[in-house]
Amino acid sequence: MPYVNIKITREGVTPAQKAELIKGATDLLVKVLNKNPATTVVVINEVEMEDWGIGGLPVEEYRKTLTSS
Amino acid sequence: MPYVNIKITREGVTPAQKAELIKGATDLLVKVLNKNPATTVVVINEVEMEDWGIGGLPVEEYRKTLTSS
Amino acid sequence: MPYVNIKITREGVTPAQKAELIKGATDLLVKVLNKNPATTVVVINEVEMEDWGIGGLPVEEYRKTLTSS
Amino acid sequence: MPYVNIKITREGVTPAQKAELIKGATDLLVKVLNKNPATTVVVINEVEMEDWGIGGLPVEEYRKTLTSS
Amino acid sequence: MPYVNIKITREGVTPAQKAELIKGATDLLVKVLNKNPATTVVVINEVEMEDWGIGGLPVEEYRKTLTSS
Amino acid sequence: MPYVNIKITREGVTPAQKAELIKGATDLLVKVLNKNPATTVVVINEVEMEDWGIGGLPVEEYRKTLTSS
Repeated sequence: MPYVNIKITREGVTPAQKAELIKGATDLLVKVLNKNPATTVVVINEVEMEDWGIGGLPVEEYRKTLTSS
Repeated sequence: MPYVNIKITREGVTPAQKAELIKGATDLLVKVLNKNPATTVVVINEVEMEDWGIGGLPVEEYRKTLTSS
Repeated sequence: MPYVNIKITREGVTPAQKAELIKGATDLLVKVLNKNPATTVVVINEVEMEDWGIGGLPVEEYRKTLTSS
Repeated sequence: MPYVNIKITREGVTPAQKAELIKGATDLLVKVLNKNPATTVVVINEVEMEDWGIGGLPVEEYRKTLTSS
Repeated sequence: MPYVNIKITREGVTPAQKAELIKGATDLLVKVLNKNPATTVVVINEVEMEDWGIGGLPVEEYRKTLTSS
Repeated sequence: MPYVNIKITREGVTPAQKAELIKGATDLLVKVLNKNPATTVVVINEVEMEDWGIGGLPVEEYRKTLTSS
């Protein structure tokens, strides 16, 4: 019955990669806690770049500071 | 002051159905806990099918396994 | 497969009331969207009073402003 | 390492305003708790009007009741 | 910069198992999306049994219906 | 009507600091988006150290790697 939520920036994640994330997260709960896959929910949220902040900046601006430093 | 979040797959839920969910969730908090509707927030998240996993699979694939079993 | 999260302040909600919230939220998803109760997850979060803010104040202080106004 | 999530209705918030929210939220965690901005994550969720309920109504309908009362 | 949230019922999960969940979720994001572990946040929420509902019932009651059916 | 959620590790945050976070987050939404404080909800979640992972490790272990490197 676990609920797993994965938030990532929207940067071209493919359906195949999402399926891999779903399978991997579910397998992890089975392996570590012996949870039932049939009631393990995984929800992926893709977040627009302008909506994700780190270091006090929108992530794209933050990354520029890293590459320019 | 309750905050209710309803996550559902994006499968054609209509504005009228969303209004029903909002009303129903609010009425539930009023009935059970006597909460004030004016400060009861309900947020609905529609999640893309490829972003919702169950049984280790994206939901559409999972449903195929149910119908084919 | 819906996921419903209900956040309320920790103010003596009883197990029976929680059961009522769980049933009510599930029944709502069945009634409005014909969802399967067996895969409808409801999670209740009780939040400490000092952790809940409204009107820029912790909720207990905010309520005092309402009663004194 | 804080994680801040800001949910607002989708009503024309600009990238510049989002950057201001990200900066303001990060500065707040630095000022109050001396957190490291480089590991402070801020995620903004814009919620469609029909997905946001208050007072038992979708927010646009609720606002009409306020203006007409 | 991913944010992973794992909600599970409070049923005696050990610190070692939590460390395994943290490592496994982080490794998954590295493997599938080549994310940087140093900015990958994993938050585990243990939810009291009475706060987790499925099938319209608190989870312990729901499990009784499964064993008795 | 914004909803702000602040997740931080449980490391002795005082009620006064929480009140500051609530005020600061609300003021930010007023300043940037002219939101109504009376319907701005702020919820703080303190997360146990063993439940917060970064760099693939529980946060306390992660911090040790930083100080020893």
